[in-house]
Amino acid sequence: MAETASRPERPESRYGNRPTMKDVAARAGVGLKTVSRVVNGEPGVTPDTERRVQEAIDALGFRRNDSARVLRKGRTASIGLVLEDLADPFYGPLSRAVEEVARAHGALLINGSSAEDPDREQELVLALCARRVDGLVVIPAGDDHRYLEPEIAAGVATVFVDRPAGKIDADVVLSDSFGGARDGVAHLIAHGHRRIGFIGDQPRIHTAIERLRGYRAAMEDAGIAVEEEWMSLGATDPDRVEQATRTMLSAPDPVTAIFAGNNRVTVTVVRVLAGLPRPVAFVGFDDIELADLLQPGVTVVAQDAAQLGRTAAERLFRQLDGASDAPERIELPTRLIKRGSGELPPAG
Amino acid sequence: MAETASRPERPESRYGNRPTMKDVAARAGVGLKTVSRVVNGEPGVTPDTERRVQEAIDALGFRRNDSARVLRKGRTASIGLVLEDLADPFYGPLSRAVEEVARAHGALLINGSSAEDPDREQELVLALCARRVDGLVVIPAGDDHRYLEPEIAAGVATVFVDRPAGKIDADVVLSDSFGGARDGVAHLIAHGHRRIGFIGDQPRIHTAIERLRGYRAAMEDAGIAVEEEWMSLGATDPDRVEQATRTMLSAPDPVTAIFAGNNRVTVTVVRVLAGLPRPVAFVGFDDIELADLLQPGVTVVAQDAAQLGRTAAERLFRQLDGASDAPERIELPTRLIKRGSGELPPAG
Repeated sequence: MAETASRPERPESRYGNRPTMKDVAARAGVGLKTVSRVVNGEPGVTPDTERRVQEAIDALGFRRNDSARVLRKGRTASIGLVLEDLADPFYGPLSRAVEEVARAHGALLINGSSAEDPDREQELVLALCARRVDGLVVIPAGDDHRYLEPEIAAGVATVFVDRPAGKIDADVVLSDSFGGARDGVAHLIAHGHRRIGFIGDQPRIHTAIERLRGYRAAMEDAGIAVEEEWMSLGATDPDRVEQATRTMLSAPDPVTAIFAGNNRVTVTVVRVLAGLPRPVAFVGFDDIELADLLQPGVTVVAQDAAQLGRTAAERLFRQLDGASDAPERIELPTRLIKRGSGELPPAG
Repeated sequence: MAETASRPERPESRYGNRPTMKDVAARAGVGLKTVSRVVNGEPGVTPDTERRVQEAIDALGFRRNDSARVLRKGRTASIGLVLEDLADPFYGPLSRAVEEVARAHGALLINGSSAEDPDREQELVLALCARRVDGLVVIPAGDDHRYLEPEIAAGVATVFVDRPAGKIDADVVLSDSFGGARDGVAHLIAHGHRRIGFIGDQPRIHTAIERLRGYRAAMEDAGIAVEEEWMSLGATDPDRVEQATRTMLSAPDPVTAIFAGNNRVTVTVVRVLAGLPRPVAFVGFDDIELADLLQPGVTVVAQDAAQLGRTAAERLFRQLDGASDAPERIELPTRLIKRGSGELPPAG
């Protein structure tokens, strides 16, 4: 309640022994205003006085409190990044890229995971807004972001990344999930496959749906009627993905190739395939570390996670710098990397 | 300067159109104190009035400003996590574990990377302190943390993880780098190797030194005199590590096995070894994804990154809850996982 607080009370005891500007002033034998001038680099202080104040600051270990400054300036020099899971390797380069751009703008990064739970996403986003972050980079878990409208109206810069916002108009930076999946599946078809399975993430996730749509488009372009049993969407936990893989491969007329909807699906499918006596062709969305060293190498549709993060963060700081462009959808291309698994012919 | 600010000025224009408690009070036709009571869940408001206030809050999109609250309470409900590189997969599970503990305590996580630069570590840590985080979990890049003494004295809870603090007494949670490396190298010796190379991270990093010490101890235990050319410490970029690997393997009397000091070294060494005609035995510190699917599977000394993060964060919140234990060093065990590469006999 900045609006009514007449002055911040003195912090509780755990901060009670922090030296204050008063302590610095007393030790240096100068007035408070002089200390303030030195701390803030303002003119009007003689070199000798400045030295005395600086010595007192060093001796006492005085540190400026940026929280208070922030409230007076209206900017907090911090941005929030809401992603799905801090432990997912896909988000590593993305987070680092957002951090690098934030750092270049003198801003700190507050990170949090939604765990793919729309309620938790909203809770985290609003907690960040309550802390008055200047802006938000959001990989959304939910599909209705109207709860953000008052924040955006109040000036919180907002960019969505990896997946678009739901029911509001906002900047979004995406990879071409549809085109990438279509290319990957067409690649399998070009190597003679017609019975191709698709194993993807949960169907309420935008990228999962887009990649499934790319799969369907490639199959349709080739005149192949897709059977229901060839498509499995759901949680990316290993048990579910392993079960889906085994079911497709043990059908009376099994698939001869599998397309995986993301990196979490890929690591499980590749593990299952490695244990089979006959080779099954495979292409996965997202590159994964060491994919080139497996036997066969894993063919992937790679997206540039760092570029996604960088583009989103730069867009965010453009907004913060006062750009008033209309919300835009920026789509980055994907890249098919052939390593062997996607070039296997149909078995039998 | 919380100490001298008489009142936070009204934020600048970009937050200027945020509805205030005054707006809510005006719309609901009640006094400010009543709005404050509703917002803070305090008693003394009739159900009918509470409903009117809530409707005004919803209609205006009013949101409490936690920054101001925080200053009055002396706690910011945020903790800082300083690590080396947000994109390193080792830190993914560690960050997630810290976030989970923070979340359980209602705190947000502010993340940043030092990029293995002591100056950048200090800059980031002090920026976090200036923002008055309640506590810090630090994976240090530097070896002198006396700059933190005033902060710790002022009550900032501090726990180091993965590597100890330098020149100050602070809690630290570590893996048993020495013992893990000694076990891994002893494992290679048990499989008949005597000429074993060690490729590690930069020699000013505590874990690099400890693992080298473990290597030396295992060799000494087996009565093997270590040659200088068998040891290479430096940056973990692929070029440096590839060069070191090739040099050890092309010596007149080449090593028959390599021990890698961490996951970044492992991915490059494994890639170089995969391209060689004859097998070279290998054990790496840190587990890596898909290590079991390579041919041969990669034998590793695994540490539990999530447990490191969890233990450090729990220790941090114990400090924040007022525990005044003496600083402690907590060491977690490592685990040798045999997958094939470490069980290869010496070639030739």
